[in-house]
Amino acid sequence: MPREFDLIHWIRTQQTTSESVPLAAGDDLAVLKFAANDLVIVGIDQVLDGVHFLSTEHPPELIGRKAMNRNLSDCAAMACLPAAAVVSFALPRGIDPDFVKRLYTGLKEAGDAFGCPIVGGDTGSWDGKLALSVAILGRSAGIEPVRRSGARPGDGIYVTGPLGGSILGRHLTFTPRVREARELVARGPISAMIDLSDGLSRDLGHICRESGVGAILEAASIPIHDDARRLNDERSALEHALSDGEDHELCFTSGPREDAIRIGTVTAERQLLIRDGNAARPLVATGFEHRF
Amino acid sequence: MPREFDLIHWIRTQQTTSESVPLAAGDDLAVLKFAANDLVIVGIDQVLDGVHFLSTEHPPELIGRKAMNRNLSDCAAMACLPAAAVVSFALPRGIDPDFVKRLYTGLKEAGDAFGCPIVGGDTGSWDGKLALSVAILGRSAGIEPVRRSGARPGDGIYVTGPLGGSILGRHLTFTPRVREARELVARGPISAMIDLSDGLSRDLGHICRESGVGAILEAASIPIHDDARRLNDERSALEHALSDGEDHELCFTSGPREDAIRIGTVTAERQLLIRDGNAARPLVATGFEHRF
Repeated sequence: MPREFDLIHWIRTQQTTSESVPLAAGDDLAVLKFAANDLVIVGIDQVLDGVHFLSTEHPPELIGRKAMNRNLSDCAAMACLPAAAVVSFALPRGIDPDFVKRLYTGLKEAGDAFGCPIVGGDTGSWDGKLALSVAILGRSAGIEPVRRSGARPGDGIYVTGPLGGSILGRHLTFTPRVREARELVARGPISAMIDLSDGLSRDLGHICRESGVGAILEAASIPIHDDARRLNDERSALEHALSDGEDHELCFTSGPREDAIRIGTVTAERQLLIRDGNAARPLVATGFEHRF
Repeated sequence: MPREFDLIHWIRTQQTTSESVPLAAGDDLAVLKFAANDLVIVGIDQVLDGVHFLSTEHPPELIGRKAMNRNLSDCAAMACLPAAAVVSFALPRGIDPDFVKRLYTGLKEAGDAFGCPIVGGDTGSWDGKLALSVAILGRSAGIEPVRRSGARPGDGIYVTGPLGGSILGRHLTFTPRVREARELVARGPISAMIDLSDGLSRDLGHICRESGVGAILEAASIPIHDDARRLNDERSALEHALSDGEDHELCFTSGPREDAIRIGTVTAERQLLIRDGNAARPLVATGFEHRF
């Protein structure tokens, strides 16, 4: 398969070494140098054709960008710095190599924007659909990784930006809040944090479950993205803001602060509520899964 | 999707923390502690239904085992110690959760056998076929990672075991040579090493290309696995030993030694040859790709 070989060769030429990456392409594995006190943070996240993107509709650069940015957003959620990524491509047989190069370019440019080089990968073709897995390594770089489990009753609940309607395009084009996360921690302790990938109600549910607490949200305080209003379907803009996924803003808990949007308060009772006017009702933790 | 949620919950209960893994399941990413002098080695490798396994024929434990062991074998190739793995599962919609648990058990037991816990992952279902990606982290642990690029003319070429015919079953059940790699380095310097995943002729080609050298193999010295003889098809047992993939023995170059099987010599001329009797002929670097 000379075309595949050419592709692998091309991919390898995209990977370069540096002081912290003494060995990238060309061996079985890549070699990284971490500072002595750095914790190594690691995770993996995949995007699948028909679930997270549509190979027939979305530009490959944006598909690649999304695949990388989802992982960078996970780094943001823990307030760590991205260090390196490795990528596996499951390619439909006969795929245009140019499509793959554009995918790779999207991945690479997204990683480069946050100092996260692609240091290795695996390419395979099959009688199946397009799938990309990105595994990311991050480093603590002087900040203890922020967990989901530290929220305490009385903490405020904050988000970094407006929510809802990402299906109109932002699910492909969002910017991971890597820098914002570090700045937030630098300005004052954060007790728990998550990135909003599954939707506010579900992701806040993760924080509450891991922390053994509950939450009450103020409907009037939830920042609603224009995209959520634009959808104009059977669900209200607020519902979209509460349950749409793939905003990739940060949701965190902390003492009082002015540098993010406060949307509610952590409670001792293990229940998720939302107050709309005077009445509080249970917040049903439904996340919206894109189905194209 | 309650069944999927149950599955994710079950997977999480399989992941435990330790001194070197202070944080595993439950957050966006896992956190690892490496020793101060450890280099971090990282790679990713996928197995795809219809290419590397057949979901309708092969027991899921063996599919999982293969997915992990391919990565452990990459660690062996660099003589590093496996440290942790993360796994992404692309699951056909409606897959039996018990099948996935058995897959996971195969992955986990293979990792545990080499001190390589699964510390995180991603599970997604789609209208596609089964695919698993495993990203592995290794640590140098006192041994400089062995590369492909250090072979020098005059070095001997060695393998750790008999080759060929892995399609009869060993492609699912091989043991990664992690311990052997460390022992080999401890006994004497190794100039270049690779694990035999693509077939001897192709993988030795990788070493030669990266090292800027050639090689001459001695046909009579190539250890042929009984499985290669058993195949009894239009290709000779020697051809199978030279070109079948997925043996996952190690191939390395070094000065004279007695602890592995010498199969040839590194040459200055950038050409791969094999001597059969008195005649030397070009070794065509074809790797055998399983097509079920």
